[in-house]
Amino acid sequence: MSERIYNFSAGPAVLPEAVLKEAQQDLWNVGGSGIGILEHSHRGKVFEKIVAEAEQDCRELAGISDQYRILFLQGGASLQFAMVPMNLLPKGGTADYINTGTWSQKAIKEAKLVGKPNEAGSSADRNFSYIPPAPQIRYSDRPAYVHFTTNNTIEGTQWRAEPGAPAGAPLVADASSDMFSRPIDVTRYGLIYAGAQKNLGPSGVVLVILRDDLVEAGPKDLPTMLQYRTHVGEHSLYNTPPTFGIYVMGRVFKWIRELGGLRAMAEQNAEKARILYDFLDQSEFFRGTADPDSRSLMNVCFRAPTEDLEAKFVTEATKRGLDGLKGHRSVGGMRASIYNAFPKQGVAALVHFMKEFERANAQLPLER
Amino acid sequence: MSERIYNFSAGPAVLPEAVLKEAQQDLWNVGGSGIGILEHSHRGKVFEKIVAEAEQDCRELAGISDQYRILFLQGGASLQFAMVPMNLLPKGGTADYINTGTWSQKAIKEAKLVGKPNEAGSSADRNFSYIPPAPQIRYSDRPAYVHFTTNNTIEGTQWRAEPGAPAGAPLVADASSDMFSRPIDVTRYGLIYAGAQKNLGPSGVVLVILRDDLVEAGPKDLPTMLQYRTHVGEHSLYNTPPTFGIYVMGRVFKWIRELGGLRAMAEQNAEKARILYDFLDQSEFFRGTADPDSRSLMNVCFRAPTEDLEAKFVTEATKRGLDGLKGHRSVGGMRASIYNAFPKQGVAALVHFMKEFERANAQLPLER
Repeated sequence: MSERIYNFSAGPAVLPEAVLKEAQQDLWNVGGSGIGILEHSHRGKVFEKIVAEAEQDCRELAGISDQYRILFLQGGASLQFAMVPMNLLPKGGTADYINTGTWSQKAIKEAKLVGKPNEAGSSADRNFSYIPPAPQIRYSDRPAYVHFTTNNTIEGTQWRAEPGAPAGAPLVADASSDMFSRPIDVTRYGLIYAGAQKNLGPSGVVLVILRDDLVEAGPKDLPTMLQYRTHVGEHSLYNTPPTFGIYVMGRVFKWIRELGGLRAMAEQNAEKARILYDFLDQSEFFRGTADPDSRSLMNVCFRAPTEDLEAKFVTEATKRGLDGLKGHRSVGGMRASIYNAFPKQGVAALVHFMKEFERANAQLPLER
Repeated sequence: MSERIYNFSAGPAVLPEAVLKEAQQDLWNVGGSGIGILEHSHRGKVFEKIVAEAEQDCRELAGISDQYRILFLQGGASLQFAMVPMNLLPKGGTADYINTGTWSQKAIKEAKLVGKPNEAGSSADRNFSYIPPAPQIRYSDRPAYVHFTTNNTIEGTQWRAEPGAPAGAPLVADASSDMFSRPIDVTRYGLIYAGAQKNLGPSGVVLVILRDDLVEAGPKDLPTMLQYRTHVGEHSLYNTPPTFGIYVMGRVFKWIRELGGLRAMAEQNAEKARILYDFLDQSEFFRGTADPDSRSLMNVCFRAPTEDLEAKFVTEATKRGLDGLKGHRSVGGMRASIYNAFPKQGVAALVHFMKEFERANAQLPLER
């Protein structure tokens, strides 16, 4: 086994090493079947058990009742941006969207192809550096649903709790980047979707949790693959599913359960984020970009005094085995993504290096 | 390494063992990066190189010119059934479909949501046991395109060569189950799509080869993810792609090249199929279901004298380490899928067992 480095990538992101080791074996021969996990028919007993266990572990992790369907689909959150309005928004109808950044905007763009999304709230006025507080949110009369982005990977903000929503309007969440990083009360939602490649698994599979009454909401003349009812009716096996992605996600669910479930994840994630934010708060060199009450526990975004120093920081960090710290190209700066599987020692190593870098570079601008 | 058995699954299907062994290592740490293949950002240098090489190897395998775009998408052939008419069929317009079985019918169903697919040919009259000969095919006047299914996994038939198509009508092929099992003249086609999980890789990624002039054919008010132009413009990286699936597909392309390319694949596949069909042709117990001139080299479908004997055959074969031989639930019987990565020794082992089973059971019906 060669050495691994600390991977701060925003997604695809670091996965639990225990899961990787299991996957290595199962690629060759899973469960003594004599066939590797990539090579099993999705209609065979071995895979049927894998998908059934993944669903069951998902339910147990978040206490999800039978009132909800659990789906493993393709196309990521990006296809859900389109499937949600295609299925839940009557043509020309209104749905409320809270705009907290890049991903919210992409979701709104797709809703415009079906109806009239109303921007019920936005933090665009200050570069999406905060989550709009309740008094700033203006819902429309009877929206088909209320959509929000639970965690904003690019801007480093995160909702502390669900936004309120008008009575009768299902709450729809893009939870791609913080799903199962903390307890979630699924009963508050009509639909939750989450691309796997942050906390849950590899890219190429998206988890969709859908309340029963919404399954049949979509028109029947949508393409078959884009109707939720299709996938509900066939338990995610209408067509050949991304079998390996589902397998890894199932193994990650078991890993979370073994570590104590979502409450344990939340404690670990809060502790990791605290170490980083505490350092940022006392630093006179680095500064966090999000408002303190809106800070993401998943993606810690920060800046150095100049862009030159930021480039130097990223380069030197990479040399030290601290990889993936460059901020998203649309906002610049630095970003440390510290999802469930990111180890606490990696956060400590980052802070150690930041202190060192600050000491070495803090006075440089003055000396010029 | 524990023992592996012969896997005749129709898909997901057997993969090259050399590729599996490489993937085992790369799950932990790919290319000395210190990060596993599942965990690399799709925007980073390591993955960019993987996707660029996959495209380049694909081009070299089939001599694909720059006139064609190569895409790695999600949703399998099933989503292509919808994307093809959404992008290439004007609303209410006509496209010709040749109906050779289950997958052709699914493609036709999705085309009906956009326009008027014309069934230009069909082998439904004899349970799709043959490929319609040219004189039976009646194209419409100026169809938007002509669609056919190159190999019919369920019915065990395969086109020997492309159907003719009216001048100016792009030929569109679902080549999911025989792509790169033999040389292909891409210049004959406007669009080729192939779910990976037969000859090319794991499930969850679909290869799309698209001629330049069709990239902009689709309306711009389609959902962003369903427009070919979106994925062409971003080189398959508009959203997070199925990175592991693309990685494995790239490794399979290299494996094919090392073995001598598509011509070598075709020779090996013809030889494997010949062994099985030769045995079937002389057997008085087993019989192939497809017309000899339409037989698939990928999926060999056959029957035994009674359904009871078929069930017994499948059960006993499984015990001998010959797995996945049960025919598709819609047609019954047996099916041996012998894609690129299926070893010749496995075919020999199957024929050996069939001979034994025939000897042991041939007289049983008479003795009752």
